Amino acid sequence: MTANKPKAVVLLSGGLDSTTILAIAQSRGYETYALTFRYGQRHTQEVEHARRVAKAFEAAGHVVVDIDLRAFGGSALTGDLEVPKHHSIDEIDDQIPVTYVPARNTIFLSFALAYAETLGAGDVFIGVNAVDYSGYPDCRPEYIAAFQRMANLATKAGVEGRQALTIHTPLIEMSKSEIIRTGLALKVDYGLTSTCYDPAPDGAPCGECDACLLRLKGFEEAGVVDPLRYGKIKGKG
Amino acid sequence: MTANKPKAVVLLSGGLDSTTILAIAQSRGYETYALTFRYGQRHTQEVEHARRVAKAFEAAGHVVVDIDLRAFGGSALTGDLEVPKHHSIDEIDDQIPVTYVPARNTIFLSFALAYAETLGAGDVFIGVNAVDYSGYPDCRPEYIAAFQRMANLATKAGVEGRQALTIHTPLIEMSKSEIIRTGLALKVDYGLTSTCYDPAPDGAPCGECDACLLRLKGFEEAGVVDPLRYGKIKGKG
Repeated sequence: MTANKPKAVVLLSGGLDSTTILAIAQSRGYETYALTFRYGQRHTQEVEHARRVAKAFEAAGHVVVDIDLRAFGGSALTGDLEVPKHHSIDEIDDQIPVTYVPARNTIFLSFALAYAETLGAGDVFIGVNAVDYSGYPDCRPEYIAAFQRMANLATKAGVEGRQALTIHTPLIEMSKSEIIRTGLALKVDYGLTSTCYDPAPDGAPCGECDACLLRLKGFEEAGVVDPLRYGKIKGKG
Repeated sequence: MTANKPKAVVLLSGGLDSTTILAIAQSRGYETYALTFRYGQRHTQEVEHARRVAKAFEAAGHVVVDIDLRAFGGSALTGDLEVPKHHSIDEIDDQIPVTYVPARNTIFLSFALAYAETLGAGDVFIGVNAVDYSGYPDCRPEYIAAFQRMANLATKAGVEGRQALTIHTPLIEMSKSEIIRTGLALKVDYGLTSTCYDPAPDGAPCGECDACLLRLKGFEEAGVVDPLRYGKIKGKG
């Protein structure tokens, strides 16, 4: 880390996508500051994955923010609804999934904006993906563009004409296999990451939720073996 | 409260402006759901004021969300900087004040968006004011318009063409005395509210911070006596 690198905030869940984003931000010459949320997920293991990833990548900073999305209810990831399970990728439909969390990316990006402003960082990286998660309204490019425009009107920097905020979404048009190939080219160890919505108590991913199925399909299409060990099914090479 | 009233989320700090906003939302026929933040303010009395106000107005719901803006530092309201004190309103300068919290309204509106989506509400009321708080970038009309546009791209409702979100800022162009006159016409009891950045342990407002001075000036210009008892100076009639 040299002092004259530009600073970037990287939203880091510890999953496959956000870990790839961290590698990409570093490969572009940024000093990276990871930002993770503990938001009443049923699997707080996610925060531990994020810590492990931030440490492995020697991020210059890592802040974990507690937010309580359960106050509003409304989603399987924060409430009491069942996480949907499937036997194959073809069962995943195009509806907005039950695991959708209201306004999640808006809340996450808002905190990223606060962190960036405090650091004097002009760049935020977020691993949204409009291909595999087309059901999430806040993963679309037009949403990100609108957030960036709003953010540039919201801050001291914007008013004073300094350092506008740029939101980087390098994964937004990539397929899962492209994301994996990109990360592997940057030497990402995907054994550090987990993406599962409903892992076993020992941390093993279920292999049956939407996130696991998309990940397994991505590794299969990339022609590599997922280094994770799954609780119920195995990644195919 | 009848079942067929439209629902609105009202950002409520328990201060003069947000209490007036709650009265305005009700006068326009909304069933009101108050949303308050406990964000590491040095005076958590603010949350108690909000509870008192929500109860007095018989809000249909009131959610208090904990968020930790101290994780990022950067402002007198959440950190260790001194709250500036003045002897008269003329000493307040036009700079962005030290009490500015990075991205605060962006974070607050993001949670309001989540609450509104969960309730099925299409309206959010926020007491921002571009006149007395011209130093806060996120109190300007162009910022609010940009947030609204982003919000309408962020949610299920927006994607499905249902119920767009409207952010109402009825105070945005009002002077403090106009706000007070509007509230009094709606029978607001301003003895319930507090606005002070640095109240005494017994809750008495200091009478010397920017917020107290603006409030006192507003009551003076409105030609009415502030019902609050100040710790050090008295409201003038």
